[in-house]
Amino acid sequence: MSTFNRVAIVGGTHGNEFSGIYLLKKWQASPALIRRASFETETLFANPNGFRDNKRYLDCDLNRQFLPADLANMELSNYEQSRAKVINAQLGPKGSARTDLVIDLHNTTSNMGPTIILLKADAFNTQLAAYVSSRMENAVILFEDHCSVEEHYFLCSIADQGIIVEIGPQSQSVVRQDVLDWMDEMTAHILDFVELFNKNEVPELPATVSAYRYEETLKLPESEDGERLGMVHKNVQDADFTVLRNGDPIFTLFDGTEVCWEGDYDAYPHFINEAAYYDNNLAMSLGKKVEIGVIR
Amino acid sequence: MSTFNRVAIVGGTHGNEFSGIYLLKKWQASPALIRRASFETETLFANPNGFRDNKRYLDCDLNRQFLPADLANMELSNYEQSRAKVINAQLGPKGSARTDLVIDLHNTTSNMGPTIILLKADAFNTQLAAYVSSRMENAVILFEDHCSVEEHYFLCSIADQGIIVEIGPQSQSVVRQDVLDWMDEMTAHILDFVELFNKNEVPELPATVSAYRYEETLKLPESEDGERLGMVHKNVQDADFTVLRNGDPIFTLFDGTEVCWEGDYDAYPHFINEAAYYDNNLAMSLGKKVEIGVIR
Repeated sequence: MSTFNRVAIVGGTHGNEFSGIYLLKKWQASPALIRRASFETETLFANPNGFRDNKRYLDCDLNRQFLPADLANMELSNYEQSRAKVINAQLGPKGSARTDLVIDLHNTTSNMGPTIILLKADAFNTQLAAYVSSRMENAVILFEDHCSVEEHYFLCSIADQGIIVEIGPQSQSVVRQDVLDWMDEMTAHILDFVELFNKNEVPELPATVSAYRYEETLKLPESEDGERLGMVHKNVQDADFTVLRNGDPIFTLFDGTEVCWEGDYDAYPHFINEAAYYDNNLAMSLGKKVEIGVIR
Repeated sequence: MSTFNRVAIVGGTHGNEFSGIYLLKKWQASPALIRRASFETETLFANPNGFRDNKRYLDCDLNRQFLPADLANMELSNYEQSRAKVINAQLGPKGSARTDLVIDLHNTTSNMGPTIILLKADAFNTQLAAYVSSRMENAVILFEDHCSVEEHYFLCSIADQGIIVEIGPQSQSVVRQDVLDWMDEMTAHILDFVELFNKNEVPELPATVSAYRYEETLKLPESEDGERLGMVHKNVQDADFTVLRNGDPIFTLFDGTEVCWEGDYDAYPHFINEAAYYDNNLAMSLGKKVEIGVIR
């Protein structure tokens, strides 16, 4: 019996991240591309009105609306809050979902390359990480397992297994072929792996896989009343997953002053200068580099 | 007597092009940076509500509203059409403007580097082009002199002399330090040149300057009902100002088909895959490489 019977690929959770939206169109025209023998694959266009208006979202970030309490709160009724409830009913419900795996396709303006974000470090996810790493040279593995899947507010947390495919750099509201091709390839590797996992045919994998683990989020320099006072330092711009050490310059204020990072660990920045995070004056996330044991 | 008595530097004509907006703040805090002895310099924040809403524009593109007939048409009354009339009253009026030179600061998501767009190939502009080229190694000179200044619909066409400083690549709604520094430097070179020009102290310049001249605009592949069918080919992405020849691949359709360029000249694409141009399904502009005589 298969572990995974039903897989959903979600695109357009953010309406101005175009790669997933155009891949969904491609796969809807050629469903064989995402078909595998041992499970059903469906596709879902999460935020069509965001795409229509060429915006990340109309009212609030759809990919932050999937906490159980928020899904249960019928007072939360704006467009994305309503979409979250509909998607949860369609693919979930969260906690006892009819979908076994959700693959949610995202773009970032940051120079993160083809990144797969995993929410657990269990047998499935560690094997998947090792498999994708072995098949795709420039793939980056990022664990965001600092909280339980239930406690995550991401769309993909509806299912027991949720994955975010996060590819950049790509400006909002643009399609880049390199980014589209990476997303297409990474999604295919994930589907291939699920097929092998279901059939108990996962090939031999290394004992560990190199990855990053989310640690913290840094804000842009701002005044007491929230006005931005500076920007990401040019040494850090585009240097996603390049080590940052205590004392390294991290921000430049608009008056030219350099600000250095004060930290007690080797940090690996990512989501550096992501456009969508300016809403909250976020500058970047920091992670630690880790060797994750592959659980067989 | 000075030729240029009054110069205006305009930022935020597009509300999500942040470099000019943050430079204006910097210069307002330190006016000496843009002060020169022989002329007055003022700054103008063209589309504050676009910035407030983090959008290029609210109703229509402000940098397309400066045709004389449109400025005179009081039926055109939306936000940007109204801003155009106010700015024209403040800096113009177009045709007999009290401002001698408008420098309008823009960003592009395309990999155009620090580009200066000039609307005339007269003595002032050709000398300016040669001066900026000699002072800034990576500066790109682009002439958009295919029509008269009066026939241009750009904001900077209000004045007899108008310049667009166009720096990329930068995602919309982001500040990159490298891009900000290039814009700051290029603007300073322009102000320095105006000062030298006024004082009749322009140094010796080469007889010609290498530049590009706008030729045509290409659309993305689309269906009869306007749906996008493809994207810029990965060979062309980021290759702004790199030659494109008849038969070179230019687009990739979403089904994988490659489309080649059919043209009878050596083309130099720019504004390649610019996010803002998706509104009209524009893929890129093409120019010709030219050696422009410097008129003394």
